Amino acid sequence: MTGFVSFIGSGPGDPELLTLKAVDRLKRADAVLFDDLSSGPILGHARPGADLVGVGKRAGRKSPKQHHVSRLLVDYAQESGRIVRLKSGDGGIFGRLEEELTALKDANIPYEIIPGVPSACAAAAAAGIPLTRRLTARRVQFVTGHDVTGQLPEDVNLAALADPTASTVVFMGKRTFPKLLATLMEYGLPSATPAILAEGVSTPEQHITRHTMASLADHLSREISDQPALILYGPLAS
Amino acid sequence: MTGFVSFIGSGPGDPELLTLKAVDRLKRADAVLFDDLSSGPILGHARPGADLVGVGKRAGRKSPKQHHVSRLLVDYAQESGRIVRLKSGDGGIFGRLEEELTALKDANIPYEIIPGVPSACAAAAAAGIPLTRRLTARRVQFVTGHDVTGQLPEDVNLAALADPTASTVVFMGKRTFPKLLATLMEYGLPSATPAILAEGVSTPEQHITRHTMASLADHLSREISDQPALILYGPLAS
Repeated sequence: MTGFVSFIGSGPGDPELLTLKAVDRLKRADAVLFDDLSSGPILGHARPGADLVGVGKRAGRKSPKQHHVSRLLVDYAQESGRIVRLKSGDGGIFGRLEEELTALKDANIPYEIIPGVPSACAAAAAAGIPLTRRLTARRVQFVTGHDVTGQLPEDVNLAALADPTASTVVFMGKRTFPKLLATLMEYGLPSATPAILAEGVSTPEQHITRHTMASLADHLSREISDQPALILYGPLAS
Repeated sequence: MTGFVSFIGSGPGDPELLTLKAVDRLKRADAVLFDDLSSGPILGHARPGADLVGVGKRAGRKSPKQHHVSRLLVDYAQESGRIVRLKSGDGGIFGRLEEELTALKDANIPYEIIPGVPSACAAAAAAGIPLTRRLTARRVQFVTGHDVTGQLPEDVNLAALADPTASTVVFMGKRTFPKLLATLMEYGLPSATPAILAEGVSTPEQHITRHTMASLADHLSREISDQPALILYGPLAS
């Protein structure tokens, strides 16, 4: 008799951006495994007595290895009844969901995936802009600014990222942004392309600033805060 | 004295995928302007006596012109207090948000944008797959399969869409998919690339089927249902 795991996208941080289904699963959970960005008031929906287990991963801090998190999830699911695995934003977008799904499949543990509000959508909403525009932004793309080693991924399609007619959102990309811009300029992206730095999206520390690609790269080459951030660029006029 | 408009992404259809903030705004609204895909039980959160105004747009059906919808929104906001403008999925992704924001700005009407669960995230969750994968899908992109004339948009970056290392979600693309595939093959996308047709996502009629690009194009050239659908392709192994 094994348990059942609900993977839940907890949204970008604001507890009011939880879905009704996420709240329902939290209320019924025997154990909740959560990341740093999906903690705080969100966990207040869990019933008293539920196990609340931090498996925090956050840019720039030491954090558990992914295979330890997957192992812990399987261990809990084999012991308890209803497990919630909270992931910030939408779990399917840069949430390392694949590794945990594989671990559960290998252990024959049933699960469901409940989508959430991606932080990219919350960042655009906070900046007052749509990610798609009928005439100027018919494509929107999300990429990660670092691979497992913390470097800019080498195998990503740079021509696609240098397209000035798409809205692009870079996740976890503050440290590598100056290098990304230099590369994208080689592929023809104008350095005057509008860019938005969205830090602490949908938290009390939310801070949204407008730049060009060039001025943002200059800023980030001098000063980087610990706040999780998204970088948006493309046809972003408000 | 004008009103205040809350643009709300109502999620993909399942009323349980509304956010808590969306429910709060619905309960306090004097009027709710909604699209077809964000109707039904979702509107049950509105208070008795609130004006519920359908401004339905749905693929394949005759629907109000966008400028009429924008005009109606401004008219309501100038008469009433709290207006909710419900948009299916996340309003910033293929929700024609730009036109309505511009209309409100021109009329000096204040607003907020509340993000929602995009239908693309719900489709991937229903298919049991993550949209990003650490080694094989470091980029995810959303595109529309038709422009305002119903044709495949001509100015979209086809090389970006032909990238087999990205997960791509095509919105409203059933009719134009055979033509899209023919074009993407010219750009080198293998016709054996995995594809998923996700119809009626997160509704009681949800139907998810797995294909290759080639077999899906063949299927859609012979038979197209009226169900709204998303097409996912790329490294989509479950």
